[in-house]
Amino acid sequence: MAAKKTAPPKQAPAAPKKKASPKDAHTLAKIERLAQAALKTVSKGANPALEIRTRSLSNVAFNEKKRIIELGDRTQSREFFNTNMARKFMQTFLIANGCRTLINENKTISIRQMFYMTKHTLKGTSENTFEDQNESDPIIEDLEVGIDALREELHLFANRRGLVVGQLVVNDAGDEIDLTKMGRGGWGIPSICEEDELKFVCTKAEFILLVEKQAIFHRLNEDRFWERNKCILMTSEGQAARGARRLLQRFSTELKIPIYVLVDNDPWGLYIYSVLKQGSINLAYESMRMAVPSIRFLGMSSYDYKKFELPPAAEIKLSKEDIARAEQMAAYPWFKDKKWQNEITALLKNGFKMELDALLTKGISFITEEYIPKKLKDKDYLQ
Amino acid sequence: MAAKKTAPPKQAPAAPKKKASPKDAHTLAKIERLAQAALKTVSKGANPALEIRTRSLSNVAFNEKKRIIELGDRTQSREFFNTNMARKFMQTFLIANGCRTLINENKTISIRQMFYMTKHTLKGTSENTFEDQNESDPIIEDLEVGIDALREELHLFANRRGLVVGQLVVNDAGDEIDLTKMGRGGWGIPSICEEDELKFVCTKAEFILLVEKQAIFHRLNEDRFWERNKCILMTSEGQAARGARRLLQRFSTELKIPIYVLVDNDPWGLYIYSVLKQGSINLAYESMRMAVPSIRFLGMSSYDYKKFELPPAAEIKLSKEDIARAEQMAAYPWFKDKKWQNEITALLKNGFKMELDALLTKGISFITEEYIPKKLKDKDYLQ
Repeated sequence: MAAKKTAPPKQAPAAPKKKASPKDAHTLAKIERLAQAALKTVSKGANPALEIRTRSLSNVAFNEKKRIIELGDRTQSREFFNTNMARKFMQTFLIANGCRTLINENKTISIRQMFYMTKHTLKGTSENTFEDQNESDPIIEDLEVGIDALREELHLFANRRGLVVGQLVVNDAGDEIDLTKMGRGGWGIPSICEEDELKFVCTKAEFILLVEKQAIFHRLNEDRFWERNKCILMTSEGQAARGARRLLQRFSTELKIPIYVLVDNDPWGLYIYSVLKQGSINLAYESMRMAVPSIRFLGMSSYDYKKFELPPAAEIKLSKEDIARAEQMAAYPWFKDKKWQNEITALLKNGFKMELDALLTKGISFITEEYIPKKLKDKDYLQ
Repeated sequence: MAAKKTAPPKQAPAAPKKKASPKDAHTLAKIERLAQAALKTVSKGANPALEIRTRSLSNVAFNEKKRIIELGDRTQSREFFNTNMARKFMQTFLIANGCRTLINENKTISIRQMFYMTKHTLKGTSENTFEDQNESDPIIEDLEVGIDALREELHLFANRRGLVVGQLVVNDAGDEIDLTKMGRGGWGIPSICEEDELKFVCTKAEFILLVEKQAIFHRLNEDRFWERNKCILMTSEGQAARGARRLLQRFSTELKIPIYVLVDNDPWGLYIYSVLKQGSINLAYESMRMAVPSIRFLGMSSYDYKKFELPPAAEIKLSKEDIARAEQMAAYPWFKDKKWQNEITALLKNGFKMELDALLTKGISFITEEYIPKKLKDKDYLQ
């Protein structure tokens, strides 16, 4: 390739702003209603207040019917004329205003950047609007709950994580991307996976496989598992980020094909699966738009050790913390079904945990050529 | 899109093995020479030994001419008939044999997976070949140094991290990928970025911009900075992983265009830049194939606070650890130049550090539209 010397780059004109999507218009209306309500109260000479659903453990419950962890209806009031609440009241409107600007300019930023965008010293005082991000993050969550909008709809994101490849063509921000042509790298799952920007164009996939571990994703991708088995292959690279969870939910509702999850055989793996499936206690208010109750636990199961005749080299002794965490898992209402109780009891009875990587004790591509195909063929999964 | 129900997937035949590349053949020959030498010694009735360059601090130095941190020539001997060394001797050959298998099968695995691949209990004993990964990782490094091959050449990788977009078309593992058409996601930089698998097809880029932070990469990508400024945009997502470093070095030697680096204004940011540029003390033996002495430090500089009239909201007070770390930086031989001493002194004199995200106090796209263009135009960088 020809070498080129650089000149100082010339600045092209800024990209034209896009028209607000119907979803953006909807979110803007919600923010404006919030502001109008406060204004109306003030103009009546009354004390303006925000009613926000309480995000405490006591207001969280597992919905047996929907099979997700949900936030209850209990609310708390945040008043302006109240010395304990005035600061948070002001902060809520600062963040709401910031989000309004983002939507109007059709830009998205991180929650850290929102902290900087809204942090300043109040004129004539030494008071800062926010001291650190520990102050602004909960306000963002309040706003999400308060106006019932995901932070992604407010044009905010947390760090992205995760990759996807396989039998799917997407259109993202106008670019058509064929996920069968991603080489070894994979497409980085965006922080925000809403319909406005990310569209599914066509697919030949018969199922979706999500693996917790990056190195296992690499193994399966290098073996072209997604080609040989007609599927979409994802990795969450550990605990799934919001983008990966939202993408998985959209796969579930829009593609309507089975989703299998493959995690390490340990309490942490069970937890990753559990959050994907029914949401988490901390972020119960977003389960509706994040949780995917239909996903299937393909492994790694405590029974796989015998089933696949793994050698002792695959074992890692359970620590005290592992045992305590497993017992905690067994007590969760969403794991109370007998098959799950058996699975967790088998882990404790084994006395060891196993990593997916341990399947390499049976051969480099054992996971691709024998382990997963056999599990799928035998319908050997939990739900 | 039409919904499809899945049938148990049919297993297609395994992908045919590819012929070993010239590079792979070269690495295989190195491994075989190692084994042949040991065999030859044994057949003479002597004690076989491996000569491996010492990877200790005392054998590491900064090469002023090449501007990289290098491993010296001092070696240590590892003998088979020596109770202190026999275990490591055996382990070295186990790993070497594992790598030989990987190259022959044209597969790559993680260093964690190599631990599992080579871990087993010796027949008739209760002795394991490896107890945990803390034992196998240093042996991999020994082998790299011992036969002068990067671990990537041995078909091994550590975790991948980082994304790339912009004015470049690559061919990776046979797939042609246009990095101007990656939507908001970006292409995941592979763990292994050697020439065998990853080729640069064509580019219109006039320079490369690497940003430390994922959220800043997102900001610049959403603003289509790489389109407006004809460049390749990368993020290392924190400290650069080996894949990102190797890719950057290949950009430097093959594309021959300037590379600018943008990190937070703090000692950690300086460290990230420093490792990219001259390598690290711990992994001094790979500087030759990883370090990129020609990169330019575009920012964030301690002088930017005044230069760009940032508000107090951008400041984060230096901690004791920050101050100690900055003083350590100032003492490194590669930062002894006056311009670097001034930069570090200015940080200490400011008494605060700044994140790239803090540029959002000046506007959402201030970094895209003013900060970077002005710095490039003014040639305001350090080298």
